[in-house]
Amino acid sequence: MPLGFLGGTGIEGKALALRFGASGVPVVVGSRSADRARAVADECNRLLGRSAIEGCSNTDMLARAEIVFLTVPFETAVAAIESCRQDLRPSHIVVDVTVPIKFEGGKPEFVEQPAGSNAELISGHLPSGIPFVAAFKTIPAHALADLNQQLSCDVFVCGDSKEARATVMTTAAQIPTVRPLDAGPLIAARTLERMTFLAITLNRRYKSKGARFRVQGL
Amino acid sequence: MPLGFLGGTGIEGKALALRFGASGVPVVVGSRSADRARAVADECNRLLGRSAIEGCSNTDMLARAEIVFLTVPFETAVAAIESCRQDLRPSHIVVDVTVPIKFEGGKPEFVEQPAGSNAELISGHLPSGIPFVAAFKTIPAHALADLNQQLSCDVFVCGDSKEARATVMTTAAQIPTVRPLDAGPLIAARTLERMTFLAITLNRRYKSKGARFRVQGL
Repeated sequence: MPLGFLGGTGIEGKALALRFGASGVPVVVGSRSADRARAVADECNRLLGRSAIEGCSNTDMLARAEIVFLTVPFETAVAAIESCRQDLRPSHIVVDVTVPIKFEGGKPEFVEQPAGSNAELISGHLPSGIPFVAAFKTIPAHALADLNQQLSCDVFVCGDSKEARATVMTTAAQIPTVRPLDAGPLIAARTLERMTFLAITLNRRYKSKGARFRVQGL
Repeated sequence: MPLGFLGGTGIEGKALALRFGASGVPVVVGSRSADRARAVADECNRLLGRSAIEGCSNTDMLARAEIVFLTVPFETAVAAIESCRQDLRPSHIVVDVTVPIKFEGGKPEFVEQPAGSNAELISGHLPSGIPFVAAFKTIPAHALADLNQQLSCDVFVCGDSKEARATVMTTAAQIPTVRPLDAGPLIAARTLERMTFLAITLNRRYKSKGARFRVQGL
């Protein structure tokens, strides 16, 4: 069964689709516009040199995929979930990769969330009974999309369902050199979202684009 | 000039003293009790097999050291600073290594700070004009104290004085295989303190004691 991407036509969606596609994992990119999704799928397949990614409407994607990555900009994540309520089923696992960071004049700014994290905000808007996990928040799109580069980092996975975490960890482990780590309940997203902001500030200071984390000593 | 440790007789102080001592950096451990400080220094020197560490009162330590690590338990950090107000000078740099985590029945609990982080709380109680930096928060005492183990991790250094950050980074770089990273203004302590909590939860889940972070891709 392919991975689904809800709103997968942006930078994060394309980057993750490329990395999963290159790892042999089929992806269905969903979008409000099926044409736009197909255009992005074609673009990714050209880069991959083979046909690993399909594009369709979000509704069609949700009919085909069970693990669904939420790959919209953080400000539109709640609206994206609301617009798909009818199509979400308890057999889905929604995987949030958003990070509440905006860029004002090129300068990154961490947007504090009254819910504690963007993941917790989104979680409060999901229909009940849909497993929800946060993952991949700390891996920059730039590194994901650069297929010549080994990632050699950890994917922190958190969420209140242990089973859903385990499923997403198994999925993440299909990407070579990525180690999934179980970060526990969803509240850990407060840490992960801030870590991404730290990585971005380090990128700016050290003139890099790919800062990401590896835990030593486990 | 030796490094000073303010309240350096606990687990964190001993671990840092051992690691700096083993790296050839002299340390003066301060305590409210000079006798207790001398006992800890003796203990560390026995483990090191040479005399790298001295013990004395906090007041005597502050007269000798300029870079002063605050190595008390997080709940007593403000009181420790208040008790030394008279002895702090603008030529000091205070380095906070505390993390607001308590253990209830062996279970770690992150203690939210209204100031944003324990570092920011402490900062508000310092006499004005004393440079203040947070560092070493994410490296577990267990890993620091195990001198047979290479650390192979990053030390994140944050604080509102760029010069003070640079000085502390130079100090940290004296420990082999540790890479100091400039994490920017003090507000980054909000991230670093949470990262330590994440590391502790990973330690528990993966039956380790030494989880710590390395940034890839810089």
